[in-house]
Amino acid sequence: MGPRTIVIFGATGDLTRRKLIPALVGLNARQALEGVRIVGVSRRERSDETFVASLREAIPEARREDFDALAPRIHYRAADLTSPDAMAALERSLCELEGEDGGRLYYFSTSPSLFELATNHLAAVGATAEDKGFRRFVYEKPFGTDLPSARALNAAILKHLREDQVFRIDHYLGKETVQNILGLRFHNAIFEPLWNRHHVELVQITMAEPLGMEGRGDFYDPTGALRDVVQNHMLQMLALTAMEAPATLDPEAVRDQKVRVLRALRIPDRENVARDSVRAQYVGGEGAYLDEPGVAKGSTTETYVALRAYVDNWRWSGVPFLLRHGKRLKAKHTEIQVQFRTAPIQLFNRPPGLSDAELRRLLDDGSLCQLRPNVLSIRLQPSPAIGLSFGVKRPGSQMTMTPAQLDFDYDEHFGGSAPPAYEPLFEDALEGDPTLFLRADEIEASWRFVDAFRAGWDAGAAPVVNYESGSWGPSEADRLFQGCEGTWRP
Amino acid sequence: MGPRTIVIFGATGDLTRRKLIPALVGLNARQALEGVRIVGVSRRERSDETFVASLREAIPEARREDFDALAPRIHYRAADLTSPDAMAALERSLCELEGEDGGRLYYFSTSPSLFELATNHLAAVGATAEDKGFRRFVYEKPFGTDLPSARALNAAILKHLREDQVFRIDHYLGKETVQNILGLRFHNAIFEPLWNRHHVELVQITMAEPLGMEGRGDFYDPTGALRDVVQNHMLQMLALTAMEAPATLDPEAVRDQKVRVLRALRIPDRENVARDSVRAQYVGGEGAYLDEPGVAKGSTTETYVALRAYVDNWRWSGVPFLLRHGKRLKAKHTEIQVQFRTAPIQLFNRPPGLSDAELRRLLDDGSLCQLRPNVLSIRLQPSPAIGLSFGVKRPGSQMTMTPAQLDFDYDEHFGGSAPPAYEPLFEDALEGDPTLFLRADEIEASWRFVDAFRAGWDAGAAPVVNYESGSWGPSEADRLFQGCEGTWRP
Repeated sequence: MGPRTIVIFGATGDLTRRKLIPALVGLNARQALEGVRIVGVSRRERSDETFVASLREAIPEARREDFDALAPRIHYRAADLTSPDAMAALERSLCELEGEDGGRLYYFSTSPSLFELATNHLAAVGATAEDKGFRRFVYEKPFGTDLPSARALNAAILKHLREDQVFRIDHYLGKETVQNILGLRFHNAIFEPLWNRHHVELVQITMAEPLGMEGRGDFYDPTGALRDVVQNHMLQMLALTAMEAPATLDPEAVRDQKVRVLRALRIPDRENVARDSVRAQYVGGEGAYLDEPGVAKGSTTETYVALRAYVDNWRWSGVPFLLRHGKRLKAKHTEIQVQFRTAPIQLFNRPPGLSDAELRRLLDDGSLCQLRPNVLSIRLQPSPAIGLSFGVKRPGSQMTMTPAQLDFDYDEHFGGSAPPAYEPLFEDALEGDPTLFLRADEIEASWRFVDAFRAGWDAGAAPVVNYESGSWGPSEADRLFQGCEGTWRP
Repeated sequence: MGPRTIVIFGATGDLTRRKLIPALVGLNARQALEGVRIVGVSRRERSDETFVASLREAIPEARREDFDALAPRIHYRAADLTSPDAMAALERSLCELEGEDGGRLYYFSTSPSLFELATNHLAAVGATAEDKGFRRFVYEKPFGTDLPSARALNAAILKHLREDQVFRIDHYLGKETVQNILGLRFHNAIFEPLWNRHHVELVQITMAEPLGMEGRGDFYDPTGALRDVVQNHMLQMLALTAMEAPATLDPEAVRDQKVRVLRALRIPDRENVARDSVRAQYVGGEGAYLDEPGVAKGSTTETYVALRAYVDNWRWSGVPFLLRHGKRLKAKHTEIQVQFRTAPIQLFNRPPGLSDAELRRLLDDGSLCQLRPNVLSIRLQPSPAIGLSFGVKRPGSQMTMTPAQLDFDYDEHFGGSAPPAYEPLFEDALEGDPTLFLRADEIEASWRFVDAFRAGWDAGAAPVVNYESGSWGPSEADRLFQGCEGTWRP
């Protein structure tokens, strides 16, 4: 692949230390980083040695040897991203360090407010031109805070960059289980015939987080759960679950299908927002949200959100996608659950003493709900797994069906855990494969959907309610289920 | 339920000792045999005590206490089934023993040659009349040896009995896993949309037996694998796998659907028999079939049979049902495998260096076969289980799909093994539920299919080949698979 440089902006930040460097160490340990040097960039002057030493501290003992193998290729350069002169100096310094032509990956692990300005400066000093090798630009989330800001940011960077030079990160797409949604759906022909409104009753996507603010209250309070997680991770999981089969695995073929789903999301008006969303804040237990440092007094920022979304296309018309995310919930749990319809005729487990006609009437008017035996779950956390629940005959002389579960555990099957999400993302960005990164139109379609809920809320729909920290969220969220649709799992 | 009597003809035989009495002991231990007395009948005079003692010997130590709880209700009467006088005396003796009105279940665990005659005699002494309680007649297999003999036998017994008094046994239907085929298919709505020619490529049914003749060569040699096992157990498994959903679980609703499948089996001509069947005899290893005691010199009886069958209806047109059974195979293994079609587009695991057009051509002309990732297996033996194989992404940067398996183990899930097959059968017969017994038309449709293969063989089609004892059968059986259909599993 020839020589390449990864330039990390925001090199002294938390993400660099906790995620980016460990991912690069992991890639290097499996020979996937040959000819790659790393240059950390931040404002303050420091030597390569000091920088490397500070990174090394954050590496667990067991990985230190791997870190040391990469360390000689880790450098540091000071630069103020807001200063054109500093960026010109950085460009000269990088060329000098490289000494020859090669590719360069700029990684923005900075405040999003710097994305546009720094890109402008880099363009001004010729750092976006690809005459000496590729120039790719990775932007961390959040990419915009609503549709207008995301549009403006896209427009600004695409003045200097082609779309295929831009890699907008959603690290959830780097997770093995998320990537496997495509494999599961389109390598196994048994899912496709079931994967539509005729056979799917609803889809649940849960992303539950036991932690609270952890000192990030000042970032979180102006953001909220909807923008922090639903706009990106959760809508991406929805898009992968709902998308049509691409004709090839070509990045644009895959992203075209995802964006079609995101564009088909029904945009709710104020009334629909009131009916189809619940927002809440945690109280009690280990401390209320309003008591967290950095949170504004009387803040109405949601730390929990539950939505009932619809994908208005032929495949999914009428099938609710129920999304739920919250902080300070009972457990770390991320899971997509595809809940299939029940059999049209209830042959088994009939309530005793009911005639056929009575049973039919009770089922039709919803006063008697059938057990939903079939749920396909794709679990991401705490441990990646795939499960299919179904009904099986209980041994004995009666034809009584009882719930059972087919299970597949990733780590057990493959002997060890999957590489952390940032490893494949770095690898793909170095290879120029944007499949797992967000295209401008995906981001904009997601914001359009999310903005509609925010607009409804701003107009007073679905006022913020409370939930106990350590619970599964407010009981109000149960009202998003209708008739016999069941309830949240877990 | 009132007093009932089970009369077992062939009471000193192997089946009574090894299967029937243990099943009754099991039922009694779970209070399912209250008010039921058992009368063993055979030719030779012996006392109740001697009879009970001989049965007790065959009961494992751990079950002796349960046996002793039932023993006081076990009696013995001597009677020659071929003698009208003896049957009249038996009838008087049973009435005397019973002392009051009650139901009676006659169980023919005798040579099939006695079924007609003994039924005639019983009818002559009024034992088929139901004025004092039900009179039901259980007939062990084989029920006939071909279509004409089965028809004649049905006609003969139905002169005296209504069809609902007749319980033709196929003990495979008493197995939990077999009964669960219905539950699995019709309680879980996810299977029905896949369960047809559009999504199923083929169905394999294997029933492998490691044992040889075990001294039963004289019975087996005039019978052969096709009549011994395919006509009954295997066609029943096929019927349950292929049948349409019944509108209710009413016995006739279920059996109507089964018989429709059996009647839709394509009847092969000689040429089709030659193409679609393989018959074989074991040789070598622990002794050849021809060396077994009781086997005729130069016998061409098949101890192995493999068939390619077709169910010619809208659901299954063109889908092969591959049946395989043999003695002295490598392991005890009974399993139904529903093998689903592959995805129409090979997105993953593409052979490197092939263009789209080349790949398409190789797939179309069958010179390149795709992996079949999806097989639903319903295993009966050695341990009951349900499995679904599918492809899952191998962790790493490539989108490589690798085989994985979702598994459900009955005994593990329910903590202990299912009751032996004869328990539910006795229970149902006592309650008059014929769902798990074969109706006259089912038996006749099965013989019609099986007879066509025998006729083809008699005309020289598919000559007997050899296979090594302890192997998985003759390699000739592989030719029943076409193109990319794969091969026998295991």
